[in-house]
Amino acid sequence: MSHKTDIEIARAANKKPIQEIGQKLGIPTEHLLPYGHDKAKVGQEFINELESRPDGKLILVTAINPTPAGEGKTTTTVGLGDGLNAIGKKAAIAIREASLGPNFGMKGGAAGGGYAQVVPMEDMNLHFTGDFHAITSAHNLLSAMIDNHIYWGNSLEIDERRITWRRVMDMNDRALRDMVVGLGGVSNGFARQTGFDITVASEVMAILCLAQDLDDLQQRLGDIIVAYTRERTPITCRQIGADGAMTVLLRDAMQPNLVQTLENNPAFVHGGPFANIAHGCNSLIATRTALKLADYVVTEAGFGADLGAEKFMNIKCRKGGIAPSVVVLVATVRAMKMNGGVAKEDLGTENVEAVRAGCANLGRHIENMKSFGVPVVVAINHFVTDTEAEVEAIKAYVAEHGSEAILARHWAEGSAGITELATRVAEIADKDSAHFAPLYADDMGLFAKIETIAKRIYRADEVLADKKIRDQLRAWEEAGFGHLPICMAKTQYSFSTDPSLRGAPTGHSVPVREVRLSAGAGFVVVICGEIMTMPGLPSKPAAMSIGLNAAGEVEGLF
Amino acid sequence: MSHKTDIEIARAANKKPIQEIGQKLGIPTEHLLPYGHDKAKVGQEFINELESRPDGKLILVTAINPTPAGEGKTTTTVGLGDGLNAIGKKAAIAIREASLGPNFGMKGGAAGGGYAQVVPMEDMNLHFTGDFHAITSAHNLLSAMIDNHIYWGNSLEIDERRITWRRVMDMNDRALRDMVVGLGGVSNGFARQTGFDITVASEVMAILCLAQDLDDLQQRLGDIIVAYTRERTPITCRQIGADGAMTVLLRDAMQPNLVQTLENNPAFVHGGPFANIAHGCNSLIATRTALKLADYVVTEAGFGADLGAEKFMNIKCRKGGIAPSVVVLVATVRAMKMNGGVAKEDLGTENVEAVRAGCANLGRHIENMKSFGVPVVVAINHFVTDTEAEVEAIKAYVAEHGSEAILARHWAEGSAGITELATRVAEIADKDSAHFAPLYADDMGLFAKIETIAKRIYRADEVLADKKIRDQLRAWEEAGFGHLPICMAKTQYSFSTDPSLRGAPTGHSVPVREVRLSAGAGFVVVICGEIMTMPGLPSKPAAMSIGLNAAGEVEGLF
Repeated sequence: MSHKTDIEIARAANKKPIQEIGQKLGIPTEHLLPYGHDKAKVGQEFINELESRPDGKLILVTAINPTPAGEGKTTTTVGLGDGLNAIGKKAAIAIREASLGPNFGMKGGAAGGGYAQVVPMEDMNLHFTGDFHAITSAHNLLSAMIDNHIYWGNSLEIDERRITWRRVMDMNDRALRDMVVGLGGVSNGFARQTGFDITVASEVMAILCLAQDLDDLQQRLGDIIVAYTRERTPITCRQIGADGAMTVLLRDAMQPNLVQTLENNPAFVHGGPFANIAHGCNSLIATRTALKLADYVVTEAGFGADLGAEKFMNIKCRKGGIAPSVVVLVATVRAMKMNGGVAKEDLGTENVEAVRAGCANLGRHIENMKSFGVPVVVAINHFVTDTEAEVEAIKAYVAEHGSEAILARHWAEGSAGITELATRVAEIADKDSAHFAPLYADDMGLFAKIETIAKRIYRADEVLADKKIRDQLRAWEEAGFGHLPICMAKTQYSFSTDPSLRGAPTGHSVPVREVRLSAGAGFVVVICGEIMTMPGLPSKPAAMSIGLNAAGEVEGLF
Repeated sequence: MSHKTDIEIARAANKKPIQEIGQKLGIPTEHLLPYGHDKAKVGQEFINELESRPDGKLILVTAINPTPAGEGKTTTTVGLGDGLNAIGKKAAIAIREASLGPNFGMKGGAAGGGYAQVVPMEDMNLHFTGDFHAITSAHNLLSAMIDNHIYWGNSLEIDERRITWRRVMDMNDRALRDMVVGLGGVSNGFARQTGFDITVASEVMAILCLAQDLDDLQQRLGDIIVAYTRERTPITCRQIGADGAMTVLLRDAMQPNLVQTLENNPAFVHGGPFANIAHGCNSLIATRTALKLADYVVTEAGFGADLGAEKFMNIKCRKGGIAPSVVVLVATVRAMKMNGGVAKEDLGTENVEAVRAGCANLGRHIENMKSFGVPVVVAINHFVTDTEAEVEAIKAYVAEHGSEAILARHWAEGSAGITELATRVAEIADKDSAHFAPLYADDMGLFAKIETIAKRIYRADEVLADKKIRDQLRAWEEAGFGHLPICMAKTQYSFSTDPSLRGAPTGHSVPVREVRLSAGAGFVVVICGEIMTMPGLPSKPAAMSIGLNAAGEVEGLF
């Protein structure tokens, strides 16, 4: 058991040259584009050559609804990847990149924790290989070209009040949420109201993470609807003429990044779309590349299984032609206790009854995941204060619900603490017992798709949406967008739309506040509640204590 | 003589792995941080170890006042570097990075031309190693923290009308020049007017290019004045608490980038400040690193010698403790003709008289450069339509003015066409005949410094500045900024402030419109005329024809 901090452990890592990590997956050095000695991109040409290879087994790590206690989903993803390697399997992990801006607000930003981390941690929380900067540039080029089109005569007859395409910045900057641009006279264009979102909320991010290849990328970028005319005719990025230049800006960013775990196993870290207004998974191209190169690929989805895994299944798997062989559902004793009504300050005290009560949340996620036709294993991510009785309470509950729970100590012990889980997960995956199917068919109506998710996953009684919203959905169906999947944007803290409603609520309603069409990404966003697409900084931002120490190391970022 | 385009020549380049280029300068592979196979950063630790080594000879390439005919300053810098290597010298070049945004407006962006280019050309015109993105992030973090400070109570009592720190984006986006942010109610902050500049205009860019090391970088970032109180007390970046986090964001960007010429010689490409409101040279750290590693370093300054070389001498050399051994002044027959009154469409016809008449501009630049105590050689950058008589006219004129002119055919022939110039430049440098001194002393008054530049370099009769401006300069002197050098921002097309006044005008006045204090960069900006810090896109932006071709190559960018 270690008492080192995550950053101390990460700095003590015995990193291998990234070429050696690539060799584990059979990537020739010339196809590995290095960024420093410990990061690389896998070359597009090499990826193209992999097409005919068989896929490895895909393992999805998801979790119960998050609580302030923390679940350790990424930590478990990393640990499981190391565990599979430790038992002799050829395994890789595939996770999201971190957004730069939020690091300057609250502390945070590690990729995993304890002895289950991905390195180099500093780089991954700073510019990494520049992917998000490329997305910012591509997004804002389109923005500039829209205003420029209007400036030079507006031949497309864009209604300046109906420009839906905003600008983005990878920074928490609330002052940019709502603004009037184009002030200062004739030479600066036409004044109009707009704003900035944070880069991870850009549709370009979602597109990069769902595109099959560069051609598909350009096609999807071209399909983005950026504005409407007075007659409500959509205007696309293709009509603005930005799709080619945006593709050029994103060419390098489309290549997946390879780094390593503390145990020198390969980790793909690529893309990072919002998990509310977008689908919240790492890029399809990274997952598919990993599946071609490794026998087992451990990946994760954002938030809890009701939001993240649902979208992983219904959006990413459906559109990407991939399917999980097994789902690992992460739970902790502490989170079960919180779901069972225990306050955060009392989590250190044994409370088997509360654990048992809180298991209702876990139980429903197990049922939900099974409804996709995929076997489920629960990973109990061990915490130092957990008692044996508490752990046994979870195991018993899960067994009663027709699944199995395995204790994992990867945070404290690395791969040595997770071999039992790794062994069992590999066994299940090898059995090929999954019969994955998305929850709804492409040809179901858009509103019916929303109802299906709300009733079958959230266990709500009804979806509330006023006539304007239902009319909008019908209009999109008529315009040829009815086949798209749904991207739900609701609170991650509850099955319901009320963040305080923990456990396994029933009988609730799902009110739809707004719907948005992401025609390029290829989904309809359904917004239930307030969604913030540009965060602000707190009164004492983390940035105030971030700096280089005497050794030239970054302090305060973690 | 080739008829290939620049991009065709660049694509046909036989690039060597960047490690081999580093080896030419004795950079161990572990200290070369690769970005792909053909770009790298030189590690800070290695740079720190070089301190005690002797410096090589610094060769400054500058030019006559630019004309639409083009002078080929970068082409000559690259060619001369190759030429020096060809005659057996250990030489490197040091030039600026390109700004991303303008590439989407007009075509352009090559680094050099013909057979004197730096590669990889595409990357250098796209994200390169991410330096400018890092500068954008660092700049905008400070911006966000200023508004955040006000949002949370404004304990520093910043006057919202007197915030001088804007935001930046590496994009030509005129709609962002002037805007009102903070709209939308209480949770978005206080509405106020501000705007975006293009990234290369950021003071952070100028600071990165003048900082000696990371400590100096943080010191300078902290010194930036971002706003004033109602009582006109300056508020600095340090008071906002952003200097540490900005330094962290810029840590990698501070390391110089190494690429190669078409002839596989080392090229440092690092930093790119505006040449009007900033000093317009590549980074000091790149130049100094190059001087430690090579026997000869060829570098260049922005615009013509009146602006670029003056600032190179009075700002970069003064502050950086470096000095040129020789100045190479680039001229072309065509530019001489234009200075002599010939229209662009008639440049292909021999006109010796016009060449001779236009030489007045060249002659004054020779005198000016000599006044810094540095020997001058004129490089006549050969163009296919030049006649022998025209070339001889320039040579004769230069000889009459106590210098020498040498014809160079590097554009068409690479190093083979520039050995005479390279040999002579090396001879002069080896003689150590330069006695470099800046034009004015640190302790001269700010207005007197402006007058010195205007009278001795521009040959103006007077500097016109109203009382408000003179008072401002005095106030800065009293506040302890009187020792700073001057950064002139005026038209690059003339010695005067009137862009149509070619040749060697006298008797003119220099009207000062505005003065700005760049306390972090360490200079006082003196603005004479309209300076645009956020360009716009043309009616048919180059972006509309930029894209990937079937081979995956970038088309339309050049």
